[in-house]
Amino acid sequence: MISFENDYLEGAHEKVLEKIVETNYIQEPGYGSDSFSKEAIEKIKDVIGQPDASVYFLSGGTQTNQVVIDAVLKKYEGVIGADTSHINVHEAGAIEFSGHKVLTLPSEKGKITADQVQKYINDLYEDSNYTHMVTPGMVYVTYPTEYGTLYTKSELEALSHICKSFNIPLYIDGARLGYGLVSSEADVDIKDIARLADIFYIGGTKIGALCGEAIVFSQQYKPQHFNTVIKQHGALLAKSRLVGVQFSTLFTDNLYFDISAHAVKMAMKIKKAFVNKGYQLYIDSPTNQQFFLIDNRTITELSKKVKFTCWEKFDDNHKIVRFATSWATREKDVDFLIEQI
Amino acid sequence: MISFENDYLEGAHEKVLEKIVETNYIQEPGYGSDSFSKEAIEKIKDVIGQPDASVYFLSGGTQTNQVVIDAVLKKYEGVIGADTSHINVHEAGAIEFSGHKVLTLPSEKGKITADQVQKYINDLYEDSNYTHMVTPGMVYVTYPTEYGTLYTKSELEALSHICKSFNIPLYIDGARLGYGLVSSEADVDIKDIARLADIFYIGGTKIGALCGEAIVFSQQYKPQHFNTVIKQHGALLAKSRLVGVQFSTLFTDNLYFDISAHAVKMAMKIKKAFVNKGYQLYIDSPTNQQFFLIDNRTITELSKKVKFTCWEKFDDNHKIVRFATSWATREKDVDFLIEQI
Amino acid sequence: MISFENDYLEGAHEKVLEKIVETNYIQEPGYGSDSFSKEAIEKIKDVIGQPDASVYFLSGGTQTNQVVIDAVLKKYEGVIGADTSHINVHEAGAIEFSGHKVLTLPSEKGKITADQVQKYINDLYEDSNYTHMVTPGMVYVTYPTEYGTLYTKSELEALSHICKSFNIPLYIDGARLGYGLVSSEADVDIKDIARLADIFYIGGTKIGALCGEAIVFSQQYKPQHFNTVIKQHGALLAKSRLVGVQFSTLFTDNLYFDISAHAVKMAMKIKKAFVNKGYQLYIDSPTNQQFFLIDNRTITELSKKVKFTCWEKFDDNHKIVRFATSWATREKDVDFLIEQI
Amino acid sequence: MISFENDYLEGAHEKVLEKIVETNYIQEPGYGSDSFSKEAIEKIKDVIGQPDASVYFLSGGTQTNQVVIDAVLKKYEGVIGADTSHINVHEAGAIEFSGHKVLTLPSEKGKITADQVQKYINDLYEDSNYTHMVTPGMVYVTYPTEYGTLYTKSELEALSHICKSFNIPLYIDGARLGYGLVSSEADVDIKDIARLADIFYIGGTKIGALCGEAIVFSQQYKPQHFNTVIKQHGALLAKSRLVGVQFSTLFTDNLYFDISAHAVKMAMKIKKAFVNKGYQLYIDSPTNQQFFLIDNRTITELSKKVKFTCWEKFDDNHKIVRFATSWATREKDVDFLIEQI
Repeated sequence: MISFENDYLEGAHEKVLEKIVETNYIQEPGYGSDSFSKEAIEKIKDVIGQPDASVYFLSGGTQTNQVVIDAVLKKYEGVIGADTSHINVHEAGAIEFSGHKVLTLPSEKGKITADQVQKYINDLYEDSNYTHMVTPGMVYVTYPTEYGTLYTKSELEALSHICKSFNIPLYIDGARLGYGLVSSEADVDIKDIARLADIFYIGGTKIGALCGEAIVFSQQYKPQHFNTVIKQHGALLAKSRLVGVQFSTLFTDNLYFDISAHAVKMAMKIKKAFVNKGYQLYIDSPTNQQFFLIDNRTITELSKKVKFTCWEKFDDNHKIVRFATSWATREKDVDFLIEQI
Repeated sequence: MISFENDYLEGAHEKVLEKIVETNYIQEPGYGSDSFSKEAIEKIKDVIGQPDASVYFLSGGTQTNQVVIDAVLKKYEGVIGADTSHINVHEAGAIEFSGHKVLTLPSEKGKITADQVQKYINDLYEDSNYTHMVTPGMVYVTYPTEYGTLYTKSELEALSHICKSFNIPLYIDGARLGYGLVSSEADVDIKDIARLADIFYIGGTKIGALCGEAIVFSQQYKPQHFNTVIKQHGALLAKSRLVGVQFSTLFTDNLYFDISAHAVKMAMKIKKAFVNKGYQLYIDSPTNQQFFLIDNRTITELSKKVKFTCWEKFDDNHKIVRFATSWATREKDVDFLIEQI
Repeated sequence: MISFENDYLEGAHEKVLEKIVETNYIQEPGYGSDSFSKEAIEKIKDVIGQPDASVYFLSGGTQTNQVVIDAVLKKYEGVIGADTSHINVHEAGAIEFSGHKVLTLPSEKGKITADQVQKYINDLYEDSNYTHMVTPGMVYVTYPTEYGTLYTKSELEALSHICKSFNIPLYIDGARLGYGLVSSEADVDIKDIARLADIFYIGGTKIGALCGEAIVFSQQYKPQHFNTVIKQHGALLAKSRLVGVQFSTLFTDNLYFDISAHAVKMAMKIKKAFVNKGYQLYIDSPTNQQFFLIDNRTITELSKKVKFTCWEKFDDNHKIVRFATSWATREKDVDFLIEQI
Repeated sequence: MISFENDYLEGAHEKVLEKIVETNYIQEPGYGSDSFSKEAIEKIKDVIGQPDASVYFLSGGTQTNQVVIDAVLKKYEGVIGADTSHINVHEAGAIEFSGHKVLTLPSEKGKITADQVQKYINDLYEDSNYTHMVTPGMVYVTYPTEYGTLYTKSELEALSHICKSFNIPLYIDGARLGYGLVSSEADVDIKDIARLADIFYIGGTKIGALCGEAIVFSQQYKPQHFNTVIKQHGALLAKSRLVGVQFSTLFTDNLYFDISAHAVKMAMKIKKAFVNKGYQLYIDSPTNQQFFLIDNRTITELSKKVKFTCWEKFDDNHKIVRFATSWATREKDVDFLIEQI
């Protein structure tokens, strides 16, 4: 049965696979010093327009969040994030495992605001018990959010500004970065992301790669002994070529953005069809994840024909349902889905 | 200036001090094997009516929470507690430092309910992402709460019941246990606490001791290698006699409860006087902490005469203000305070 | 220039790559529930002869050691290992990062003995400061060792026996397991490993895979919430298919052992040639890593023609040098190397 | 039975107790902001001759080591220390619990040398696997050592020099600092310690206090958010007055050094008597701990009359035995001991 359950259902984009096969017998050193990783780093620095950025590759998103947050925070610091954020809900306590508290702010559609951050930190600094509380050392946001929504440029600029004013870095989790940047509603590009974030990552696992995320420390932020930190977290791949080759391919000839655009186009087609047939949007997402509010009987019927995710119970008769597209979604499968509704 | 800022302003009850002085030159082994600690353990087991309980002494409350929670939780587990709870707000991330997440529930007047716990865990177990989320391994409540309020016996029984049904322990933070149990509104005694909690601690620092808390593992719960865990946390006192002597004295001739009763009597006198003079209670606390909603001008005036704590801003013109009494509060100082309002 | 620097210089065995390509567009769930991982688990259980074993896949060796050791040890426990062992020297403190001490024993050629373990634990238990010391909770050995040497069956049986007598698990790090088991000097097979170890891992990264290690908990040991622990460590791959497909292929038609045998055959050819030409063995290794003691002048000359690793300085005029073969080593490259010496 | 088992057998020096009693009802703020702590800090800064030093108080030695080492090390760093050092052997893994590895050097009579440290770090920096190894971030020594021995001034200067050359701090554990500094063999004073160490602590628990250690960050080292770090470790005493009063008293009128001198005088009397009667010194300690090599039969006889510690088995017929004196040791008890041998 065709599945729209998530955006990591297939392997890798065929160009990525071809490159893995093609380079297979070239002998390369490991642990990040292979030529493919170096090549990929140059391409990424070029695309983001920051020749002095630092780029590293890891294998997955939770790992990336744990390593980055632990490497950047001082020991007594915590990270500010949305209550609905991945690090707070769906990482099995990976941030706390490395000793840090997630300081949560209530979110709207997955987003937090600069004003919230400012008020949180100001209130804390005014609190007489300040030294007994976790010091905020970073702000974490996701682009797109867990609900497929996007921060506007002015929202990101405000977050960036407030972070600078408190002298703490802004970290953007870009597990689905491509799916956000190619959206017609995005008013930032990857150069903006690199300029506004102190650290961000470019998600590969969900966008064309078998595995792999690219961490970017913008030029204003220089990590120390970062390979040792990665190793200490058990996250340093011996055959770093695996991720290097993939990102080198994804950042050749705009592939990363082209395949992202395909996914978003398919998602928009689904959204439009559902809306036209009277389905209710739960959130109006401009990216590859679409959330609808559907009654239980319809869900039961539809789930006999295609696979999707029941995200959350809404009330006794309705659930929030998610359909995800990806670089690998075939238009004929989207058409099949639309016929079923 | 006389202070009602908190309940740890003075040293120790005079009987406690006398015993420290009296026993000073008796040679004793350390690290928990001194005879005073053994004596104190027997007295506590007697008072709680559980000859098979396990009792250990530490020096402070945050330390106790960190050691107990870390010792009891499995590595992948977190602890459920009120969003306002001490472990979540005022321990500088001590729980996260030891690798565990605090899973917060919204609280009312510092309290959480069995129904909330049940719903939280049931929702979690039903979540398809269950294995990506922190497993609840303990429920943490404070008695009295951070707002001076008390759980009723039936509320504690419900919490105990729900914990047993999920096979996780109930831990009661008793930093101010005495001030709760002697309240006229308390419908539990220390034997009930020992029966309903799997683990609890009897606060000494705030009730008559220079330092020290007594951890009680009820007979149904047997900790393993607990002294090694305490040592590993840097929390094992070489001169364990210091806390042993103090608890032995506090649990002789009902001293712990008698001095707790004095503190609560003083707090009730303050409450009554404030209410009679038209001050507004923020919370109707039956224990040693009293919270009022006072306008800023009155606060400014009053703070020229006595010390107290501005707990939180309420609105632009009012603050929540706390007056705390303790075993050491002199009635004449309470009378002086009442004259000022 | 041809390299013998290590055993992770190339990508994956061609059959492994073919299978990755062939299955690329099959939609599969992630995080360990894909059908390829399930298939691979069944094949491994079959090969080790333990239908009740538990098998999990991770992406690298240090990660595997960290996750396994942290998951298995109680919080106050440490792991006993050789002073030269990978976890003690070359994992950047990954074990300590997760809170556990490596309790080191002096080793001979990378090996420790059951007698050493027994004496260490007995001495500890007899120490009056026992509760102030780290409790041993596991014994860690590598097969083959970091020096290419092998434990005999009787040595492993003795280690297994002593572990059972102290009721702690024996964990075998099999980063190069295949290269050990196919050696003519090995007197154990993988069924013996599974019987004698409580936990072991089958290395894929160094033997035919792009990445991936298979953790096996023998039937006598049942891990709890292990996927949550993996996630908490940031080690759960979204596209678990990637490792699943690879191990499924490696454990089809004896591929894992066949390609291991090739590597060891090449290593023996190198050893024989070096010895015949008068080079001095530093260690007489029967597996894929060969260590020679070579004078600096010869090293300088040779390094103009092939790549290898200077392992350690021996004295002012000599170094210990390592040549590693792998599943990917071409016989013509070995012949070329031999011509150069 | 009179005991020479250790140096924490009694309570506190009587002047310390008197001050605790005398100040008992003075209301003071907590968590380090009490006036007694401030007073004590000034006295200590005066004694060490560093008005710009930073001083903090904790309750015990293992706690102090854990908090200091964790606060000072970067996350990927470890601490270099003697294999016999307290942090490596007798702290139940407290350093590893906070995520850091103890990098051990073989020691002679409890001491390590600047040359060892230099060679260790140089070898590491030259290692091709450097990024896979724990980075040294601190050197830890004890003064006096666990064996009662003392570093000379030139040894400490060499250690200090080598630490500066590698830009890492030198930390001196002074659990028994007084007993070292007053020794006739000491060629440093506390001003030298403060000058040569970047961080050190002045032990109170073993020298006149009920509990308490004073951490000194020398003027060249400024800790950040240190009270928050202390709180995070569960180590911040609410009634900080308890330790403040004690150190204020100990550092009034030279009390700390006077009572240390008494202990060492008693130890020298014991040493002289044992040597005169033909007992064999195991180590020639110039401080309050004396180590003899005694045959098992003599041990059995002597242990019927006084208590002491069997430190370690030497051979089948002999043990290493320790006699410790302290500020509280009575000369008549020493005379009694001498009569028994």
